[in-house]
Amino acid sequence: MSVRLPKKILVTGGAGFLGSHLCRRLLAEGAEVTCLDNLFTGSKRNIGALTANPAFTFVLHDVTQPYRGQFDEIYNLACPASPIHYQKNPVETVKTSVLGMINMLDLARDTGARLLHTSTSEIYGDPLVHPQVESYWGNVNTIGIRSCYDEGKRVAETLAADYRRAYGVDVRLVRIFNTYGPNMHPQDGRVISNFAMQALANAPITIYGDGSQTRSFQYCDDLIEAMVRLMAKPKAELDAFCERHGLGTPVVNTGNPGEYTIRELAEKTLALLPDSTSRIVYAPLPGDDPKRRKPDITLAKELLGWEPQVPLDEGLAKTIDYFRTTFSK
Amino acid sequence: MSVRLPKKILVTGGAGFLGSHLCRRLLAEGAEVTCLDNLFTGSKRNIGALTANPAFTFVLHDVTQPYRGQFDEIYNLACPASPIHYQKNPVETVKTSVLGMINMLDLARDTGARLLHTSTSEIYGDPLVHPQVESYWGNVNTIGIRSCYDEGKRVAETLAADYRRAYGVDVRLVRIFNTYGPNMHPQDGRVISNFAMQALANAPITIYGDGSQTRSFQYCDDLIEAMVRLMAKPKAELDAFCERHGLGTPVVNTGNPGEYTIRELAEKTLALLPDSTSRIVYAPLPGDDPKRRKPDITLAKELLGWEPQVPLDEGLAKTIDYFRTTFSK
Repeated sequence: MSVRLPKKILVTGGAGFLGSHLCRRLLAEGAEVTCLDNLFTGSKRNIGALTANPAFTFVLHDVTQPYRGQFDEIYNLACPASPIHYQKNPVETVKTSVLGMINMLDLARDTGARLLHTSTSEIYGDPLVHPQVESYWGNVNTIGIRSCYDEGKRVAETLAADYRRAYGVDVRLVRIFNTYGPNMHPQDGRVISNFAMQALANAPITIYGDGSQTRSFQYCDDLIEAMVRLMAKPKAELDAFCERHGLGTPVVNTGNPGEYTIRELAEKTLALLPDSTSRIVYAPLPGDDPKRRKPDITLAKELLGWEPQVPLDEGLAKTIDYFRTTFSK
Repeated sequence: MSVRLPKKILVTGGAGFLGSHLCRRLLAEGAEVTCLDNLFTGSKRNIGALTANPAFTFVLHDVTQPYRGQFDEIYNLACPASPIHYQKNPVETVKTSVLGMINMLDLARDTGARLLHTSTSEIYGDPLVHPQVESYWGNVNTIGIRSCYDEGKRVAETLAADYRRAYGVDVRLVRIFNTYGPNMHPQDGRVISNFAMQALANAPITIYGDGSQTRSFQYCDDLIEAMVRLMAKPKAELDAFCERHGLGTPVVNTGNPGEYTIRELAEKTLALLPDSTSRIVYAPLPGDDPKRRKPDITLAKELLGWEPQVPLDEGLAKTIDYFRTTFSK
């Protein structure tokens, strides 16, 4: 009878919004999880429930510095992901994307670990193609105030593709579209956390523009499911996938193609908090408002047999419940 | 009577094709020049004539490692620039662009030096706008085989813009279009060096496709003139320039908008080498052939009072003369 050792898995950015859900999921599957985080936007609160598990280890570490260890799998999530955070120190944001990627690719190359990197729909910039497919190259300003995130994430993809070609590193990328859920940062400036925190504080819910602009919202558990499935794919299957689709490296979009107007989202938020005295107010659209993006998830469906399962009403209820229990007095 | 000290200037990539011309020009103006190069694509041959000048210092150094020194001005040119070179070690190419830029920006920030960075028309990728203007965002594949150069150069621009905004570093960028002249690498795979070396070896001159595709060719001295003029601009004038044109950081295209077909270039090359027995042959166009690009130089004209002065016939004669005297037996 053979003994199967638990998988050893490294999660960078593991104390962040998405990282914390991933750590929880991997622990539930019996893995030994090392969570790396510098706690710039991540929080001990997000992993509080995990620390009692002996299979979980938290390491306070910044991925711009090399990190060594023996792991079967590396999930590279570390990077501030909301404009309010990544613009605070744009230079550090670029370094986190670029040096963090180099350090994790070096680790994967040197130890034979498999690596999944979380890229972003932001690499498509202000897209000229709708919905976005993986073969679309994007439309990004190199020298604007959001560029530190977008261009840092773009060159991280480039590095992943080059390590795969040059050193045979077993990489795979997800391009994550707008995602929400419990453990979101309450002050990240995103519309779901904004609305929830405003409604809980009985403050006005601010809609920029007339609220008819649409957004897609992916619940965190759906994304984690896609990531775990992608990590499980053998390299040979991914090589064939790239060949079939003319992609320079294995990459799939993960997002929810369902579209809702911002006004619908505000109304749903208020409906879930019937005691709130908040009212919707309208303000002018700022100049650098994130552009409309909607994922084409054909490739994720084909490769992973995956599509989002959690309806907005259900995910929003869980998210608002998290904000209520965590942040309201 | 006041004594004016000579300017101290650092040129990274100073033993390369363009770097060597820049060093020569700066020495001629009375500057003290420190030339940094790792000699991966640069060559001691290019700077041989300069080493006797006591105002010139060569330092064998790789810009991916920090470098310290007191300089008034830094010209950051270091990076392999032809596909044949930058694809040889794509990971190192990204590191040269990114870490080299960070190291030079750190040096500029810490010492108050002014920094001119050489970006490239490659950041426009396969452009959807003709001719290319500085406000065009480009069309670049993040995960292709040329991405290491294109995306590395893009994020270097981002870093420059962010150091300017965050730390007030006095940066300025040139986006260099196709440039040629003496000291080009004979095996860089570019069309001018290919044709010249083929004609000198009495080998067939290979045209890919039917030769009707056009290219723009900027003579090196024209570029160096633009760079020196841009470096001389006071920060306040550049700030106003950015404001006026809605640019996130000071940047100008430098290139020659004149267009020639590849067949014309082959014929001009043969006309300049009447003893060559080479004949033109045609081969199929490869899949990743560099796309047509043509600079819009309106902004360089406005800001620098500059436009290219050297006609193709004159520049080509000097270039072929260089290849003949340097490489033919």
